[in-house]
Amino acid sequence: MATVPLLSDEDAPAESRAIFDEIRAARKTDFVNNFWRALAHDPALLRATWDRLSQVMAPGALDPLVKELIYVAVSTVNGCSYCVHSHTAAARARGMSPEQHAELLAVIGMASQTNALATALQVPTDPRFKED
Amino acid sequence: MATVPLLSDEDAPAESRAIFDEIRAARKTDFVNNFWRALAHDPALLRATWDRLSQVMAPGALDPLVKELIYVAVSTVNGCSYCVHSHTAAARARGMSPEQHAELLAVIGMASQTNALATALQVPTDPRFKED
Amino acid sequence: MATVPLLSDEDAPAESRAIFDEIRAARKTDFVNNFWRALAHDPALLRATWDRLSQVMAPGALDPLVKELIYVAVSTVNGCSYCVHSHTAAARARGMSPEQHAELLAVIGMASQTNALATALQVPTDPRFKED
Amino acid sequence: MATVPLLSDEDAPAESRAIFDEIRAARKTDFVNNFWRALAHDPALLRATWDRLSQVMAPGALDPLVKELIYVAVSTVNGCSYCVHSHTAAARARGMSPEQHAELLAVIGMASQTNALATALQVPTDPRFKED
Amino acid sequence: MATVPLLSDEDAPAESRAIFDEIRAARKTDFVNNFWRALAHDPALLRATWDRLSQVMAPGALDPLVKELIYVAVSTVNGCSYCVHSHTAAARARGMSPEQHAELLAVIGMASQTNALATALQVPTDPRFKED
Amino acid sequence: MATVPLLSDEDAPAESRAIFDEIRAARKTDFVNNFWRALAHDPALLRATWDRLSQVMAPGALDPLVKELIYVAVSTVNGCSYCVHSHTAAARARGMSPEQHAELLAVIGMASQTNALATALQVPTDPRFKED
Repeated sequence: MATVPLLSDEDAPAESRAIFDEIRAARKTDFVNNFWRALAHDPALLRATWDRLSQVMAPGALDPLVKELIYVAVSTVNGCSYCVHSHTAAARARGMSPEQHAELLAVIGMASQTNALATALQVPTDPRFKED
Repeated sequence: MATVPLLSDEDAPAESRAIFDEIRAARKTDFVNNFWRALAHDPALLRATWDRLSQVMAPGALDPLVKELIYVAVSTVNGCSYCVHSHTAAARARGMSPEQHAELLAVIGMASQTNALATALQVPTDPRFKED
Repeated sequence: MATVPLLSDEDAPAESRAIFDEIRAARKTDFVNNFWRALAHDPALLRATWDRLSQVMAPGALDPLVKELIYVAVSTVNGCSYCVHSHTAAARARGMSPEQHAELLAVIGMASQTNALATALQVPTDPRFKED
Repeated sequence: MATVPLLSDEDAPAESRAIFDEIRAARKTDFVNNFWRALAHDPALLRATWDRLSQVMAPGALDPLVKELIYVAVSTVNGCSYCVHSHTAAARARGMSPEQHAELLAVIGMASQTNALATALQVPTDPRFKED
Repeated sequence: MATVPLLSDEDAPAESRAIFDEIRAARKTDFVNNFWRALAHDPALLRATWDRLSQVMAPGALDPLVKELIYVAVSTVNGCSYCVHSHTAAARARGMSPEQHAELLAVIGMASQTNALATALQVPTDPRFKED
Repeated sequence: MATVPLLSDEDAPAESRAIFDEIRAARKTDFVNNFWRALAHDPALLRATWDRLSQVMAPGALDPLVKELIYVAVSTVNGCSYCVHSHTAAARARGMSPEQHAELLAVIGMASQTNALATALQVPTDPRFKED
């Protein structure tokens, strides 16, 4: 169903297989999800994506759960079905409670509504909201 | 520049003016931003939007700053310039640090990238990500 | 501000100028809006766009005002500022009342909200909604 | 396939079950579609969504069929597969003819095309289209 | 699963069946894909779409493979699953190599990321980028 | 107008200023555009974005002009005004002719139209388009 074959460990180029192992080590699981198996055709793209994702999602000024909530929100608006599923699962794995999930949904819905209203009305930005 | 005139307190219907006053009281400021002034033509829409927004953004299982970060993320992907400005300002007002802003940007960018890759590759969802 | 110069009648290729005149005749006005002046660099694209638009927006099973309301809805979700402005103006010219405009906004907002919720929840389509 | 289990009447919280009954009564059918069953985990979100939807889609300055056509248009551009299916079905239930459906499709397609052209060209809004 | 039945040659209106034959002749294959079978309910829309597509995708200042790459990019960002599949197949039929596919993916991902960053930051356009 | 101040060379952190110099050297110009000046608050994000962009847009299996055309297409559909301007300028700098620009526009418009039609019709993917 993908536009490229999903590569098993056997079929993946050696460089990609090594990244599969890094993913397994970092996530403490044997499971490598389909996204990486689709990217594995291009070890350079797989490398760049995995390395950057690891940096971006690491604990920092925002905690990893908050980052996953933001990821779900972005994925929803971009209409990426795969990403909504995988990052909702990731948020749960990081401790998202049903109540937090419900509030996340409510904020995504509300923002999408007011985004549409502001765009349909072409509301000009108040000068005090402008930083620069 | 809006598709309707922005209504001053004088020009707004009485019902909308009363909501302006609720907004002022809730936010402890005299300032009513343009979004509400554009909605004020339709007191029913203004009422429904303001009431629901107040409920959704109130403290709950997620704290108000996290909700604003999610709001900025949604507004960005929906391409709502007004909303990006107003909710970035709101996030700052709730204490978003420059470091948190930078990480928010990095997550939005990363998610948009992997969303595009997963869609371009039409990656099928791994069975284990499916709840139902 | 456009990515190409907007062409005046003097600067436009003869073929495009002739289409400007068709637009004026069809709309019973001297005014040719910027969209057509930007397209005028490519008479073939201008021709195809104007001819098809005229067919699609003509009275048929849906009346022209309803078509303009749909056009505003699509333009809003696509985030096309120019198109929101021009088709809101066109809807008014075809008789859209302030009450109709307000309801249009409410439907666009509501649909955008439930679209986001259904996507975030990845709700499977009920079999009875499937035609085929 | 949803990111939450779809709740049967038995599994839904009492408050949500009561809303299922309101939906049945309003629609004069025993059928409650999956969207509501997914929302039912959060009775507050289900309540707010159902109540507001009922108000927004009620007959008013626009008739209910026109509102459904607009809903389909918004859902299409937002890429919500579930919503395209359910609201196309709803439009048919409200009397949408095949000819009206065909014209709806043509307008959605045309608008999406000119939206993209206007954005790619970054056409500046003509002053006469600006209300405010 | 479509919102209209897909029409076989037998069920399609004569005018649409004739266009199926044009598609077969142009593509030197017996196969007519589902997109055209769904459009076939409205011969006028089918005609307009097929004719215009044939013109737009013909060799010109850009070669047909480049046009298909652009088509895949647009389809990805619009989240059109059908179109991503069909135009990825079309690009392969026109000679897209795995290396070109991988670079296409990398550019789509990179652009989506910087688009999101520029929107989240609301970066003002540098005067030198403005043509008009 | 940005949501952060645009940083001059004087105000930028040393690490970001060094990247400004890399940009100048790579592009053989003194000009550093606003996108980089907005990102400069976060040297890590600036570094990751610039390095990856340089790799992705380098000559490879696709030539740099083709990559810029794809970038313009993605930026258009994402509705990123800044990016449409900057990458249209970049495409011109890499030799995009007016004829190529016109064909790029026509393909973007056509794809957006058929994307919307396929989504509104929810056309199921033909089995032969599926790789996996």
